[in-house]
Amino acid sequence: MDNFNFYSPTEFVFGKGRECECGKYVKKYGGSKVLIHYGGQSAQKSGLLDRVKKSLTESGVPFVELGGVQPNPRDTLVYKGIDLCRSENVDFILAVGGGSVIDSSKAIAMGVVYDGDFWDFYSGKRAQKALPVGTVLTIAAAGSEGSGDSVITKEDGMLKRGSGSDAIRPRFSVMNPELTQTLPAYQTACGATDIMAHVFERYFTNTPEVEITDRLCEAVLLTMVKETPRVIADPNNYEARANIMWAGTVAHTNIVGVGRQQDWNSHRIEHELSALYDCAHGAGLAVIMPAWMEFVYKHNVLRFCQMATRVFGCQMDFENPENTARAGIKAFRTFLHNIGMPINFAELGAKVEDIPALVDKFGVGDGRTGGFVSLSADDVTQIYKIAAKAEL
Amino acid sequence: MDNFNFYSPTEFVFGKGRECECGKYVKKYGGSKVLIHYGGQSAQKSGLLDRVKKSLTESGVPFVELGGVQPNPRDTLVYKGIDLCRSENVDFILAVGGGSVIDSSKAIAMGVVYDGDFWDFYSGKRAQKALPVGTVLTIAAAGSEGSGDSVITKEDGMLKRGSGSDAIRPRFSVMNPELTQTLPAYQTACGATDIMAHVFERYFTNTPEVEITDRLCEAVLLTMVKETPRVIADPNNYEARANIMWAGTVAHTNIVGVGRQQDWNSHRIEHELSALYDCAHGAGLAVIMPAWMEFVYKHNVLRFCQMATRVFGCQMDFENPENTARAGIKAFRTFLHNIGMPINFAELGAKVEDIPALVDKFGVGDGRTGGFVSLSADDVTQIYKIAAKAEL
Repeated sequence: MDNFNFYSPTEFVFGKGRECECGKYVKKYGGSKVLIHYGGQSAQKSGLLDRVKKSLTESGVPFVELGGVQPNPRDTLVYKGIDLCRSENVDFILAVGGGSVIDSSKAIAMGVVYDGDFWDFYSGKRAQKALPVGTVLTIAAAGSEGSGDSVITKEDGMLKRGSGSDAIRPRFSVMNPELTQTLPAYQTACGATDIMAHVFERYFTNTPEVEITDRLCEAVLLTMVKETPRVIADPNNYEARANIMWAGTVAHTNIVGVGRQQDWNSHRIEHELSALYDCAHGAGLAVIMPAWMEFVYKHNVLRFCQMATRVFGCQMDFENPENTARAGIKAFRTFLHNIGMPINFAELGAKVEDIPALVDKFGVGDGRTGGFVSLSADDVTQIYKIAAKAEL
Repeated sequence: MDNFNFYSPTEFVFGKGRECECGKYVKKYGGSKVLIHYGGQSAQKSGLLDRVKKSLTESGVPFVELGGVQPNPRDTLVYKGIDLCRSENVDFILAVGGGSVIDSSKAIAMGVVYDGDFWDFYSGKRAQKALPVGTVLTIAAAGSEGSGDSVITKEDGMLKRGSGSDAIRPRFSVMNPELTQTLPAYQTACGATDIMAHVFERYFTNTPEVEITDRLCEAVLLTMVKETPRVIADPNNYEARANIMWAGTVAHTNIVGVGRQQDWNSHRIEHELSALYDCAHGAGLAVIMPAWMEFVYKHNVLRFCQMATRVFGCQMDFENPENTARAGIKAFRTFLHNIGMPINFAELGAKVEDIPALVDKFGVGDGRTGGFVSLSADDVTQIYKIAAKAEL
């Protein structure tokens, strides 16, 4: 096990009706004037925004609003948010939405207290400070409610880049599974795929003897395998929604990934798809991740057998372990198909002829990535090609 | 799943040699004068205390010292620590040791900033504030390095009582698995038993549909089942020590127990044993917990089958599930015996004739406890009797 630090100071406020307490938590964590940041009209139509505003008002906390966050959130709105916070003397950002809204809020939080261009923090610079952020989560997916990470897309060139700092870990996150019950099945499945991908990026490692984090990874994956089909079949199943929502947070605070080398190549490869086609991140991952597995599994066949047997209940073929490894990957792709996810380029709306451009923007050049298996540009091309023509 | 809050703001600083950074973390979390609190001579002999002092000195942080914490830490030393901190203007407590040292440090931390008797916080009052506490952990067991809990024994009457508050969650905990390599096998096994007991107290619940926390509980248990015999066989196995140490923290921050009713009757029943005989808490749990399981398993046979099959690899007897439930309990007791734990009163040094006195001090009177199965005084008597004569 490698040396590590683990730090997850967010207070998670979980359960039915908890959004009505968000005013109390804003005050607890020092907010005296709030920016409510959100996405489209669903938060308004559902009455969620009204409940949030009522809670703030009851706690005597004034607020301003900025909606309009898109999936793959853009730098252009972040600049607007920074200006608004400065002109209105906002000292606390409350994200009401999913990963995109939270990531946009984190970017604003860093930008408000920084003299330069906030994009610096998405170009390698680490933020030392930020306005405090709270969240009211509406989709189980990105894990941004419990992470120090944010991903923003620069509209000029559609560059999708990440930033990480303890300064942007949310002070509190309200997580009411009821709020996810109105999500369309497709978005629910995209979220579930993202959660599983966050675990797999940590699960496939070259660090030996990490039983505790292996088992914690498998705990999240087993939960997703059980609960996801239940919410696809019955969107109002509160218990299944609740299990998925907490699994999504556990998947990405890094408690299941500490002390081990991680991969994250599938996320990087996917980011080029969602940047180019503006598709859902989870849908892109459903196409890329099994293809990446097929490309790399021979690097450690028994680790893939571990996944196949422990997570997908495959029988171990001791005479030919590669059969078991492949059976596990196939079980994962079949699972994704069954919950309504695309499994190849055609189903995603991507084009084979764009592969050279995708690889070019991936930007590994003549070098190689790090991770479980170090990838060259040719390797990334192969993975896109496997993804393009994948079948059950 | 029940509504819950989860809050674990401790920064965990994990790995080889990390105790040499403790001065940096004391400063990071606001300490300007430190009480180093520790137990017996092992921390001195091993050179650990010298490394801690050197790190504090290098960071320019002055300190005073108070050693002498015993297992089942006493109120008498807590009073001394409070006086010392006040007279020396200490503003940060650094616990160097195991659960007893950390619990004693937490008690001092609450007492220093409180006008009344610190024992109030062990008699039902909740602390609102405390001096900040940091830890350098030397045994994987109690989970106190990541919890808001403390247990202290009042010497007058040997009353063992607990206290809980977010105010006493450690600011940071240095966890170097190397420091546990010199522990005698018996103490190592006691710690492992305590870790598993912390999970079982949460695992046996009447809350339905808590798959994610069930699976997380099982992840910790599976890790302990694999790694504990390895460290008993080879005390210097760093990797097994590291997996156990992180498992011990995960077991008790409550991340595996949120959103579900918990039990904790085995802990309460054991506390009377260690209070009366001054035996190790883990050893007492090894005698009590399987006995408790035998007394309660018919309350939910299939939950015990889940433990038996998922954790101990038992085959499910679908024709007679009670056989599987009992096989799981037997597997647990055999596991405890194999790592060198006592499994009955004789092996622990407890006496059958003391059972009425133990039940009397347990203090349930004519009422009942809460938990997975609500217990009367007669039930507790039965559990002590099962524990007294248990065999493999």
